[in-house]
Amino acid sequence: MNLQAFFKVTYGLYLVCSRDGKNYNGHVSNTVFQVTADPPKFVVASHKENLTTDYIRKSKAFSVSVLQQEVDLTFLGPWGFQSGKSIDKFSGMNYKTGVTGVPIVLDKAVAYIECEVEDEIDTGTHILFVGRVVDADILDPGAKPLTYDYYREVIKGFSPENSPTYTGDKLEKTFIKEKAEMQEKPKKYQCKICGYIYDPEVGDPHAGIAPGTAFEDIPDSWQCPVCGVTKKDFVRID
Amino acid sequence: MNLQAFFKVTYGLYLVCSRDGKNYNGHVSNTVFQVTADPPKFVVASHKENLTTDYIRKSKAFSVSVLQQEVDLTFLGPWGFQSGKSIDKFSGMNYKTGVTGVPIVLDKAVAYIECEVEDEIDTGTHILFVGRVVDADILDPGAKPLTYDYYREVIKGFSPENSPTYTGDKLEKTFIKEKAEMQEKPKKYQCKICGYIYDPEVGDPHAGIAPGTAFEDIPDSWQCPVCGVTKKDFVRID
Repeated sequence: MNLQAFFKVTYGLYLVCSRDGKNYNGHVSNTVFQVTADPPKFVVASHKENLTTDYIRKSKAFSVSVLQQEVDLTFLGPWGFQSGKSIDKFSGMNYKTGVTGVPIVLDKAVAYIECEVEDEIDTGTHILFVGRVVDADILDPGAKPLTYDYYREVIKGFSPENSPTYTGDKLEKTFIKEKAEMQEKPKKYQCKICGYIYDPEVGDPHAGIAPGTAFEDIPDSWQCPVCGVTKKDFVRID
Repeated sequence: MNLQAFFKVTYGLYLVCSRDGKNYNGHVSNTVFQVTADPPKFVVASHKENLTTDYIRKSKAFSVSVLQQEVDLTFLGPWGFQSGKSIDKFSGMNYKTGVTGVPIVLDKAVAYIECEVEDEIDTGTHILFVGRVVDADILDPGAKPLTYDYYREVIKGFSPENSPTYTGDKLEKTFIKEKAEMQEKPKKYQCKICGYIYDPEVGDPHAGIAPGTAFEDIPDSWQCPVCGVTKKDFVRID
């Protein structure tokens, strides 16, 4: 069996959000799709260990914000690689409350779809939630939706471990190696957890790391701007 | 509610095939996605009235061929708009038999995934089949997978009525109108059923209609090369 075949399946990338009372949470998901047209229903797959999964079960509702292509790892990082158990992902975020009371993220979104849960199916590690659409709208008619392929090939991101499409460390390492072979400029380092690439030409100005700073010269207290791990979780990729 | 929001969800396009004994059938599907990584499982959504749905229920197995971008409406037509109850879709097709006995289409495919059904869920008009992957491989490493967006925007195809993402006659007509406004050259006609566009500059040489033949001059016995309907189901779009 060749697991690389799975990479040929096309997905978009979405923020799937829900609530427990007035507590909001959400995460990046690639598994969102329409399952019936009349009435319109959508399905999302969500890992049992994710906080958002608990929230969807409690509120029986979820929103889907269709992410736009013009998004970067810094925006996606907290939604994809950090848990709502330790941070408030909605802090500083532009969002509204839907008709079911769930939050709907408006930042970096092309469109949104809000659903009431009709059914849930246990598929092992993940739950499939079947939701009847109660509201939907376009937010930015001119923006292109972000695809998973674009995320991997252009933004150079990885799959979080709880993703349905995570392929394990070995395949991700092959992916890093392939990327490294395509690199021409030296001394870039990549985060093994989220795929963020530290480029010394760019630095990390938000964290006070000036352009031109070699990875070796960054203080050990520095954290990955996407997922928050430290330098020891980075590998050289050139 | 703005149904146009649904068009912002990203899909690929696939041939989903199965069997009833030695009878093979399959159809075009956009609803294929991975639902767990360990063990790998995929979900497909299939309309209850489709013959392939019966076959999947009987054989408890299905294959998914990931279509490549270099495919045209003539290839897709029988798989998307015609029923296996009236034609043999595998006639002249390059395919192999998988480990479960289901057929796997190799023509115009980037990769394939073969699954044994573990569970099925009734969502109304469609059945969700949850399948454990038993085999998968890359068929054409250099080919790009076909996306639904590319199908609509470049190949200019529509959704069959049994698709989970069919949006009804009104929205499809808006789509035709928008397309028509983008057209500059006169006298093209579009099939209301499948979206095939008859271009008089191209004609339909396979059916003996030479380039340069006006739509009005085509014999009434002529059939849409994609879905088989006659001229009365075409509308002028310029």
